[in-house]
Amino acid sequence: MASFPDDTPRHSGGDAIAEMVDALPLVDHHCHGVVRETLDRPAFEALLCEADRPGPWHGSLFDTQVGFSVRRLCAPILDLPPHVGPDEYLERRAELGADEVAGRLLRATGISEFLVDTGFLQDRLTGPDELAAYVGARAHEVARLEPVAEQVIAERGAGTFADTCRSRLADASRTAIAFKSVAAYRVGLDLPPERPSDAAVFTAAVRWASEIAAGAPARLADETLVRFLIWTAVDLGLPLQFHVGYGDADADLAHGDPLLLTPLLRATAGRGVPIMLLHNYPFHRHAAYLAQVFDHVFVDVGLAVQNVGGDGAARVLAELLELAPFGSVLFSTDGCGLPELFHVGTVQFRTALTGFLERETRQGRWSPVDAERVARLIAGDNARRAYRLGSGAPPTD
Amino acid sequence: MASFPDDTPRHSGGDAIAEMVDALPLVDHHCHGVVRETLDRPAFEALLCEADRPGPWHGSLFDTQVGFSVRRLCAPILDLPPHVGPDEYLERRAELGADEVAGRLLRATGISEFLVDTGFLQDRLTGPDELAAYVGARAHEVARLEPVAEQVIAERGAGTFADTCRSRLADASRTAIAFKSVAAYRVGLDLPPERPSDAAVFTAAVRWASEIAAGAPARLADETLVRFLIWTAVDLGLPLQFHVGYGDADADLAHGDPLLLTPLLRATAGRGVPIMLLHNYPFHRHAAYLAQVFDHVFVDVGLAVQNVGGDGAARVLAELLELAPFGSVLFSTDGCGLPELFHVGTVQFRTALTGFLERETRQGRWSPVDAERVARLIAGDNARRAYRLGSGAPPTD
Amino acid sequence: MASFPDDTPRHSGGDAIAEMVDALPLVDHHCHGVVRETLDRPAFEALLCEADRPGPWHGSLFDTQVGFSVRRLCAPILDLPPHVGPDEYLERRAELGADEVAGRLLRATGISEFLVDTGFLQDRLTGPDELAAYVGARAHEVARLEPVAEQVIAERGAGTFADTCRSRLADASRTAIAFKSVAAYRVGLDLPPERPSDAAVFTAAVRWASEIAAGAPARLADETLVRFLIWTAVDLGLPLQFHVGYGDADADLAHGDPLLLTPLLRATAGRGVPIMLLHNYPFHRHAAYLAQVFDHVFVDVGLAVQNVGGDGAARVLAELLELAPFGSVLFSTDGCGLPELFHVGTVQFRTALTGFLERETRQGRWSPVDAERVARLIAGDNARRAYRLGSGAPPTD
Repeated sequence: MASFPDDTPRHSGGDAIAEMVDALPLVDHHCHGVVRETLDRPAFEALLCEADRPGPWHGSLFDTQVGFSVRRLCAPILDLPPHVGPDEYLERRAELGADEVAGRLLRATGISEFLVDTGFLQDRLTGPDELAAYVGARAHEVARLEPVAEQVIAERGAGTFADTCRSRLADASRTAIAFKSVAAYRVGLDLPPERPSDAAVFTAAVRWASEIAAGAPARLADETLVRFLIWTAVDLGLPLQFHVGYGDADADLAHGDPLLLTPLLRATAGRGVPIMLLHNYPFHRHAAYLAQVFDHVFVDVGLAVQNVGGDGAARVLAELLELAPFGSVLFSTDGCGLPELFHVGTVQFRTALTGFLERETRQGRWSPVDAERVARLIAGDNARRAYRLGSGAPPTD
Repeated sequence: MASFPDDTPRHSGGDAIAEMVDALPLVDHHCHGVVRETLDRPAFEALLCEADRPGPWHGSLFDTQVGFSVRRLCAPILDLPPHVGPDEYLERRAELGADEVAGRLLRATGISEFLVDTGFLQDRLTGPDELAAYVGARAHEVARLEPVAEQVIAERGAGTFADTCRSRLADASRTAIAFKSVAAYRVGLDLPPERPSDAAVFTAAVRWASEIAAGAPARLADETLVRFLIWTAVDLGLPLQFHVGYGDADADLAHGDPLLLTPLLRATAGRGVPIMLLHNYPFHRHAAYLAQVFDHVFVDVGLAVQNVGGDGAARVLAELLELAPFGSVLFSTDGCGLPELFHVGTVQFRTALTGFLERETRQGRWSPVDAERVARLIAGDNARRAYRLGSGAPPTD
Repeated sequence: MASFPDDTPRHSGGDAIAEMVDALPLVDHHCHGVVRETLDRPAFEALLCEADRPGPWHGSLFDTQVGFSVRRLCAPILDLPPHVGPDEYLERRAELGADEVAGRLLRATGISEFLVDTGFLQDRLTGPDELAAYVGARAHEVARLEPVAEQVIAERGAGTFADTCRSRLADASRTAIAFKSVAAYRVGLDLPPERPSDAAVFTAAVRWASEIAAGAPARLADETLVRFLIWTAVDLGLPLQFHVGYGDADADLAHGDPLLLTPLLRATAGRGVPIMLLHNYPFHRHAAYLAQVFDHVFVDVGLAVQNVGGDGAARVLAELLELAPFGSVLFSTDGCGLPELFHVGTVQFRTALTGFLERETRQGRWSPVDAERVARLIAGDNARRAYRLGSGAPPTD
């Protein structure tokens, strides 16, 4: 244990599978922007995992799998030895400046396309083009549904709520590559599958407007209205992403199990609209089952892969691949705020996928040809097909 | 990776445990018949996993763990190289004919007794004797409860519903080895434990009959009547199987967690009737817990073992064996339609069990004598005891 | 497989991490006493796992992971060869006498502090000091909430119920190191987060007293009163333990998922009172998530580690460490009745932790310095901090 290699240890040798996986350009089908300001330690820790901030009981949030991963994997990209202490790491980060750090870390990811959710921390995070510019990648916008409703109710009130939402989402669909719902954060995923009537939407909008008039914040947390947005999005035909499972304490994870979406998935099957279940941990086996029985369901374990450490990422990916058809699995980082999260997410994804494929081929269970084909599906081809990216053809590499 | 062995790679060497496990005759305590017609690719894929059929988004259902397993494990049995493409595989299959294919694949399983659920796709699948004849094995019938009620309501109406059901199930109990309920597909497993009164059964039967008279199909989905059937079966003293967990999209997996059965398991303890929880994935750790705290509960991970790939099967079996008493674990394939599923299920079961026992003995945690004893329990002795098969004595081998 | 080492095989060589972990004194933050009488085989099996007793279907409860672990790990401590049969083991146990057996097994654990739940089988188990005396360790009492209410209602009735409970718990807080709730066994963990009003408590106490007057046992199973006890404990500022997940058939595991506690955890955040989620299996990934997003939540996988075998313990610990901050993870045995359970729990914990740390350091993901620091946190430093043990300083070792 006296020394460590000073570059990213994605693979142990000159193995063909590791080289193949390392060279794959990735489509990150769900992420956010990064912050451009210099971060002190509390601010950095607040963005590191799903805890809001470090507290008095647990000590530093660097003492987590993702904290250790940052120190191991990102430090060398900033010319530091692996496992460097948090304070040294943050000093070097400040010295280089946020833009240089973001550029180095994002370029190391090998991501060729970013699908960026623009509905969270909008004032603080880089926009899609700004993010992609760090690496010369392509960027696409994923439009959140709930903020649209919140703008409409604030600007117009309840009177023409349904029509105005429909019109704004139709506008959004002309520039966005997909929609996203954070129903899990607002009302949970136990949603009745029926499309609400316009009368029901009107009633709910009136109630919401009156709550806002009485001083409540314009935060959408009404099940009828959330379902209205979902069905409006489905009508517009874009892929629809759902936050599922792991997230911060604002969500109630007990209501974030993807199995709760079963009735809605049944109701939306056969409409030509893919549904993307994001994150899914610790319910990723449930999500994989849904992807098997519903052809229009796609799944990932982004966010988890970056948070659970290298060993955990291998386990989680393998569990997802138990039931999920190989044509249904997507890659994402869910990187948000810190460029470190994109780097950790991609390295741990590539390492986990390599380990998986090496085990399968070494045992003779999979042929190398199949292993490479599945790697390409997950790394990007599935996303290119589901989101109809570019000409539909995968980029040459 | 240049070449593969052309026979089934159950084990890597001449290891004693692998040889012992490979030689064990298996009691498949839950399966279905196979189809005798030649299958084109869509028809084959429709039977391959729990997706109804391939759809426009995910590509071929051969791109699943079970699809890869068929190409790897079954191709050599049909004189093809491993990993052969789906079309070549299906051509060779058609060339040999369904009966020759079934005979080869089923003989390779080493199954000595089949317990066959005859209540599904009855017109299309071989019956128990027909299935067993392929390999010279013994066959037993498992009688589904719900179709009996559906026949009674269709033929007799609600008038003597309870008595007629009781009488028909009593008749069935004279030839069947066990009963099975698909409550999970009809009303979910969150069943009140109480035996419904005859008055409640009558009321429910009248309602059901009137729905049928109004044009509804005679499909039982009434909780009271499902519970009535379960209690009638318990009274008759045969082992009772429950579909639990993983299945197709007709079931709602959120209502298929075996923990939902806890009150019913508590109510049926001490009656001398074993309850078999089938499949259980992804809730197999929950099922294992139930098997520990309820002596009359038996568990398997059939269906999962055939679907999750070789690596997944090892993981799932190991997770089941965390809490399940070794005397409570059963083997099944849940093979249905395709003889390939029996072959994949048995090879992956034997490989997973071998890997588990080799790890335990290599680490010195288990003695080889205990390892062999547990292998025999799971492979067949537990089923022979629970189902009172033959003289109760395990066959010599 | 011809011979086994006759001492505990915690590690395979002279590895630094294994030696470091083996030498760590452990704070067992949740356990019970042991029985002092000689146990025959049925009595021993009744204490071995969470089954009440062996039954007619599964055979001996020695045929479980924990049964095999006892035969492997405890036999050598009693001068027997590993894997000795149950009857031989129990004969030797009787020959040595319960006290000698307890002393040998408990000394082998390396536990330096016991936090003992005194509210279960009080007449049959050793008290904290008696337990600690076997090994010269320190003992602390963990006071159960529910028995206090049961004493108050029996002795005083409903009249001054709330005030008397408050006063008795305040008394208990002067000698106990923590409180514990078995809400999971009584009303489930789906608890509304609000503190009940004194009027609501009075009404519930009157109803309970009248049920007792009508012949019901004085067993607390009223949600309002359980919540009253929890809030009273929180007011007193001691750490509060919750039974979560795995336990015996008295609990309904479906209502023991820690995610059900989310609203209560949100309501108790920021009050300076740590909440300890005990056991958690098979929901330990859920618990780890809660520990990440709530700074005052601590987690363990005690009870599971002793029950799931060596391989299972490694898996369960690794799954817990996916999301749980390293500053939130505690060690416990949940040993109860049999000193064997303390020994199995500690050996399997040390082995699992060693394996985890060796894998991380061997892959270069963690530095050896970090590995040792995390080991110390989990083994005892987190508990010393959370329970404010002694001077807060870890013992030298």
